[in-house]
This record gives sequence, structure tokens and C-alpha cells, in this order.
Amino acid sequence: MVEQTEGTARIAVTGLATMGSNLARNLARHGYRVAVHNRTSARTTALIEQHGQEGDFVAAETMPELVAALAKPRQIIIMVKAGQPTDAVIDELVDLLEPGDMVIDGGNAQFADTRRREAALRERGLHFVGAGISGGEEGALNGPSIMPGGSKESYAHLGPVLESIAAKVDGQPCCVHVGPDGAGHFVKMVHNGIEYADMQLIAEAYDLLRRAGGLKPAEIAEVFRGWNSGDLESYLVEITAEVLGHVDAATGQPFVDVVADQAEQKGTGRWTVQEALELGIPVTGIAEAVFARALSGHVDQRVAVRDRLPGDVPSTVAVDGLVDDVRHALYASKVVAYAQGFDQIRAASQTYGWNIDLGAMATIWRGGCIIRARFLDRIREAYDGNPELPSLLVNDYFADAVEQAQQAWRRVVSTAVQAGVPVPGFSSALAYYDGLRSERLPAALVQGLRDFFGAHTYRRVDREGSFHTLWGADRSEIEA
Amino acid sequence: MVEQTEGTARIAVTGLATMGSNLARNLARHGYRVAVHNRTSARTTALIEQHGQEGDFVAAETMPELVAALAKPRQIIIMVKAGQPTDAVIDELVDLLEPGDMVIDGGNAQFADTRRREAALRERGLHFVGAGISGGEEGALNGPSIMPGGSKESYAHLGPVLESIAAKVDGQPCCVHVGPDGAGHFVKMVHNGIEYADMQLIAEAYDLLRRAGGLKPAEIAEVFRGWNSGDLESYLVEITAEVLGHVDAATGQPFVDVVADQAEQKGTGRWTVQEALELGIPVTGIAEAVFARALSGHVDQRVAVRDRLPGDVPSTVAVDGLVDDVRHALYASKVVAYAQGFDQIRAASQTYGWNIDLGAMATIWRGGCIIRARFLDRIREAYDGNPELPSLLVNDYFADAVEQAQQAWRRVVSTAVQAGVPVPGFSSALAYYDGLRSERLPAALVQGLRDFFGAHTYRRVDREGSFHTLWGADRSEIEA
Repeated sequence: MVEQTEGTARIAVTGLATMGSNLARNLARHGYRVAVHNRTSARTTALIEQHGQEGDFVAAETMPELVAALAKPRQIIIMVKAGQPTDAVIDELVDLLEPGDMVIDGGNAQFADTRRREAALRERGLHFVGAGISGGEEGALNGPSIMPGGSKESYAHLGPVLESIAAKVDGQPCCVHVGPDGAGHFVKMVHNGIEYADMQLIAEAYDLLRRAGGLKPAEIAEVFRGWNSGDLESYLVEITAEVLGHVDAATGQPFVDVVADQAEQKGTGRWTVQEALELGIPVTGIAEAVFARALSGHVDQRVAVRDRLPGDVPSTVAVDGLVDDVRHALYASKVVAYAQGFDQIRAASQTYGWNIDLGAMATIWRGGCIIRARFLDRIREAYDGNPELPSLLVNDYFADAVEQAQQAWRRVVSTAVQAGVPVPGFSSALAYYDGLRSERLPAALVQGLRDFFGAHTYRRVDREGSFHTLWGADRSEIEA
Repeated sequence: MVEQTEGTARIAVTGLATMGSNLARNLARHGYRVAVHNRTSARTTALIEQHGQEGDFVAAETMPELVAALAKPRQIIIMVKAGQPTDAVIDELVDLLEPGDMVIDGGNAQFADTRRREAALRERGLHFVGAGISGGEEGALNGPSIMPGGSKESYAHLGPVLESIAAKVDGQPCCVHVGPDGAGHFVKMVHNGIEYADMQLIAEAYDLLRRAGGLKPAEIAEVFRGWNSGDLESYLVEITAEVLGHVDAATGQPFVDVVADQAEQKGTGRWTVQEALELGIPVTGIAEAVFARALSGHVDQRVAVRDRLPGDVPSTVAVDGLVDDVRHALYASKVVAYAQGFDQIRAASQTYGWNIDLGAMATIWRGGCIIRARFLDRIREAYDGNPELPSLLVNDYFADAVEQAQQAWRRVVSTAVQAGVPVPGFSSALAYYDGLRSERLPAALVQGLRDFFGAHTYRRVDREGSFHTLWGADRSEIEA
């Protein structure tokens, strides 16, 4: 580590694909002198040529130039692909930096990688900030939701900059210090997982209105447009109306009918479920959403099964009240999906010692990001009112909402099941709700079976201890 | 590596807890001279004292003694805890062995660990065999189902021994060479995952008959006893009848009512789902089972939710036909769970180049293991008839069974949903079935939304290529 010259740029961005480029422009538009760099300098040149007039950019051809352009302590945002490319940039950077400098990873890193990198850079006196950034290209340019992890000290320098470029809702920035090391990327991961669940539930609502209700895409677009002025008001419901209302120019068909019905994924939904399994948190909504996408992609299997087992159940049902019932089912299932996601964040916060403020997470998701919704105000209020809330479902607002929705929700699942329309999201959410509120669960039978075949022991409801029944002998009970 | 003396024992077992001890006895009872060893020699002494007369044991106090007692090529079965303890034993062993010797891990290792260990030992000219062993203590003693991975060469030596001590069904041993490196432990993992799903479905059937049907545990025991003489004939259904029929001596209550209703787990179910997510295989049945166990364990949350949201839905429904409907639902859901598990094995086999014979897996699960069932004969026939079967659901036998069951299955889910009884297993299996056979899935809408907010592009049904709609501009379509 050699003493480097000091420049005048407030912050740097390396990696100028669309997300990085838009983030740099957002920073420049907010009056920061921004040093910019890309591995191949053509992108840097293009950015300056096309958008140089938007603010104060310093173009750097090499990483040492980028570092030299910065005021101290230096702050460099990495916007490259997650995984090995991120490690390569970090490796190149660390030798050029001095203690107190800050490296910010704005990509979709796995939080375990972020924990590893943070520890490695801390050893060298550097701050590493894993910052989840949501909102896509448009958010990066005009105001994303930002979830930075890392040290408090780094946030003291970096927070004001990030807060100024973040989306604002009611004057509050959609950016807050999430917690140490991997906390920011963890929360971003769960955000994405919830996004999967939210989209799956919307897709089920659409599918049911179409296949069981007999409505056309344009009619369903109107239904969603109406829903967007009520409790369901959210970005995803809003753009669902846009997508369903869109007509394909080439064919004159509804756009949704010309799109191949195989959903793709980039991995954060899968990671969310894998990590929830590790933490022992049932995130059934996210899991069913990830699996529904996987199922849709198995084309050969789908063709084989539908050739052999074509539908022979009624294809439409009475549409009376269906629209309103589906709205209730969507809302109640969404409450469950969010309750599960927030449970997962709380569990990780306890496991990793992050001390995450759940209400603050709802606050910074209200704008900029894909799952932004009116709904999040209610979640914020719920956790502000009781930070120790055992589940969103017991907050009065959500408990009342789910209670009011429940008969409709049951009718919807029942209708879908009779009509042969798959609603894994609606039905698993309902099963979760009914599971949590059951006085007794058949898990007692599972424990009995485990004791029978594997001597795994069980606990009793009436006294402490672990017990085993001698199933193969006289079936007396012993303390284990 | 030094040239070692050669002994006369055919095989060795190190780690003499119940499983290891019973496996050693099983080997001895089959006429093999078995060298036995445990880290603390008290267990070795106890084995010899209590069971020495059952066969030809050679007690070894130390690992070098154990190795010296063996004929070459040496075969040592490790029966210690998975993870670090297994690595510790392997480390101690390898320096004592010579090229061609075989180390067999009979524990529940993660298959990735097995792959790592196999590669490391191969470097040293040793064979490492990750062997899944199912059947619990009783199986280990009297005939387990054995799933050995590793090299063909090692199976040539080891196979005859393992086959002789394995369970037999119709004269066939429940043991076959699964495939290279981690294949055996992978298949054992999926076996356990299927076991989770199977038990969850049984638990739901019981819960529904009790809470919606109003039957008592002893009555439901009789129902299961009856089912065990039909298509559902299986070890788990058989012991469910035993557990439900058992009366707690201390209270005179049904045993299942005095057992705490929090199901525990040891990890293989979780691993199965995590790996299925990695492979992109929807194993919704196993996932819902793992999550249902997790849910049952969150006691504080359950108490809070049921206090705030007590049941207010009808607690019983007409029992007419319910028993038979539930039998159909259980069978159809079980077909789905097994179809998903076999899909996962096939996907892993392709990914890792294992070339696993799926019909052979069904064959070796017919005896010895926890999921042994008449049903597995049908699965074997299905894959023997068509090794490239895209899904068990398209095999005639299973397709007919599911078609015949489907109306009952739909009634059962509908009944449960109306009665507030959670049936995540039944309903997710039905959603999977309806998803696979759908002509069009709403995944098209998901792709449209992803393109809208993230420019993730989509494919079209009518021509090749990737496309993006300029949502923020004139909504024309461009090739991406």
C-alpha cells in the first residue's frame, strides 16, 4: 500500500453497463463530482459523450487513474457481475487503496460472499459495503431503493450521498444503514424473493380470472387497474395492467398470448429459499413461486404430461363475485408472503447479529424498488408499533384484513382446485395461515413415526424431557 | 504409505454406536470375519461381550490394529457422524492404507462432501465409497437398503458383501451400484426427502379425517390398517396404524395426543430441497413437508397467531365418502412426490454424469428402507418399460391412477380449505399436477412483467429469438 495522490471527485463508479452508468448519472445529477471507469474504455467514452453535460464527470482509463481522481477517504462503487468478476475488481482495487477507504459492491452478491469480502477488507483497514440496489435501470437513474450493509463508520461518509440519490417517499429517502457486513445484500435477496412471490400471486390471479372466470386479457387489465386504486396499490399491480392491456403489433393478439410461457430466473429467489431452509423459516410463498418458474421451463415434460393427461374438469365457473374474491385472495396471500419474508430477515438478523430494524426495511422499500406498494406503510406501522411482533399476521391491521378476506380466499382456492387451475401460491399461503393458527398440528404424528422407525424420541405435552417408546418390545415408554 | 501386514478379516467397521454396531453384527451373522473398532474401546468391548457369539469378530483397540486385521484389498466401513468426525477418521485412515484399499462412508454425508472425499482419496490410489444406508437400527441389523456410490472396481469387491447383508425382496437384494463418486449419497438424500413428503401426506390425511371428519385416533388407525392392504401398502402406512392405535399408559389418552406437536429434522430433507433448487427441479412436496416441520417448531409464533386469529370456520364436514376421498388424495399426492423425487435424481445424474438407473433405485427401495412400499414395484416397471420416461405421471399405470383419483383429490383439498385444515402437501401436489398439464401457464405474464421492469427480454411463441418491448417509449418491440 503506497501513499497515493488525492483527487477531487467525491465518489467513483467502476463498471458502466446500464445499471452502473445510470447510477453514475444519478450521482452527477445530484451535484457530486463522479469518477467513472470501465474495463473497456469505450463505455466510459460513450457515457461522457452522451451524458457528460448532466454533471461533473471525471473519466478514468485505468483503475489507478480512477483511484487517483478521488478525494479521501475514497469511495468506489463496483457495478459489475456478481461472483468472480466482483472479486477480480476488488483484488485490483485493494492494492491501490489506503486505510479508511470504502469499496461498495452495488451488485446482487450472495450475502455470504459479502461477509467474506467484508472480513478480508477489514483486515486491511478498508471498509467494504455490500449495498443492495433495487429498481432496475430506471431506478438507478431516477432514484433506487438502496440497502447498504457494512460498518457504521462507512455509512457516516457514504450514507448522505446514497440517501440523496435514492427514491424519496413522503420526503424520506429509500435508503438506510441495514446492518453490518452482509446485512444489506441479505435484505436485498429477500426483497427479490418477495418479488418472486408477489409476481406469482399476480400471475395466479390473472390465470384464474381468465381460465375459470372467462375474462379476456384486456378485461383483466381493467380489473388490475381498478385494484391499483385500493389496498393492492403497487408498482407490480400497476404494470400488470399495462402488460395485460398491451396488444402485440405483429399479430394483433394480446401481448401476453404471444410471449412464451416459460419464466426465467437469475438466482436470488432460489438463494432466498435455500437460505430460509438453512434458517428454518417457512417461506412457502417464495418457494412455490421459484418452483412454478422452474416447472414452466420444463417444456418437454409439460408436453408429455398434457398429452397424456389433458384437462377434463370444468373450464369455467360462475364469475359472480369471482373478481372480488380473487382480490381478497391476492391480498391475503400477499400478507402471508411478506410475513414470511420479514420472518426470514428477523431470523437472519438474530443469527448473524445484525440488529436489523424491520420497520426501516419496509420504509425503504416504499419507493424505487420493484415491490414498492402502499401496503409497506402498513408494515412499517406494524413494526414501529411493536418491533418484537412475532408475525405480521398478528398485527391488528393485517389480522383484520386477513380475517375479512378469509372466506373469499377459501372460495378462490376451492374454485381453482375444482377448475383445474394451478394456484400453488394462494393455496400454500392459506395452508400456512391455517397451520399457524391450528391448536394442534399433525406434527405429533410425524414425531411418533420418527420415534417408531428411528428411535428419534419425542417430547410430551404434559412433562419435560425426551421420551422413547419401545415399539418393538412391550411398548412401554422410557426417558431418553 | 508403508507396506502393512495382512490380516484375515474380510471387512471392518469403525464407529460402533447403534447403527455401526448393528451393521457389524449383520456382517458377522452372514459369515464374514469382521474387524471392529471404536474411538473409545468400551463400545468395542460391549459389542464383543453382548454379541460376540453371533459371529467372527476381531476387536481392534486402535486404528492401526484395525487396518492390520484386514485381508487385502482392505475394506473399512466408517459409521460415525457426518461432517468433521467423518473427515477426522478418513484422515487417520489414509496414512495406514495402500493403493486399492477401500474406505466406505455409511453415514448420511452431503453428496458434495462425498465427491470431495472421493476425489482426494482417488489421488492416493484409494477407493472411496459413499454408501447411503437406510432402514434405521433395525434395518442395519436385519437387512437395510444400501445405496453405494464410487468406482465400479470397488463395487466388484464390495458389492457381494453389501448385497448379502441387504434386505431381499422377491430374492433380489436391496443394494445396487448407484454410480460414481457422490451418486449413492445423493440418492439416499432424495430417499430421505421423499420420506419427508410421504410422512407429511400421511399426517395431512390423519389430520383431515380427525378435524374435518370427526374420527378418533383409534378409528383412523383402523382406516390406515385397511389402506395397508391396498395400493397404499407400505411400511409408513403400516406403522401409522400402530402409532395412532397406541394408547399412552400414563394418561390413558391416545398416544398421538400426548406427543408435542413440533416435528424435528436432521437435515437431509432440507438438503434435498436446496439441491433441487440448484438443479431447477420443482420438488414442492418435499419442500412443503420440510416447511411444515419448521412451522410446527415455531411455538411462540403459533401461540401468538392462534390467539389473535382463532378458527371461525366449520370444524367438521360430512364424513360421507371422506375416507375414500382421502385415500385417493393421499395416493395421488404420493405419486406426485415420488415423480418429483425421481426427476431430481435424473437431473443430478445428467448434471454429474452418474448414469443412474432409475428403475434400479425403485428396486432397492422396496425393502429395508423407511419408504418401502408395494408402490415401488410400479415405479420400477415404469422405468424398466421406458428409461427415458419424462415423468412418472405419464406412465400408464400412474396416469390412470391419478386420473381416477383426481375428482376425489379435488374434493379433499376443497374440503380441507373450507374446514381450515392445512393441507400444504395435498394442495401443492395438485397444483403441480394442474401446472404440468396446463396448455398455457401464466409464466407468460411473469416474463412480460420482468421485461417491463428489468428489460429481461422474453421469447415469443411464433418465432425464434429474444425480444424486448420499449415499455417506456412507444412500446414497439425490438430484438434483443
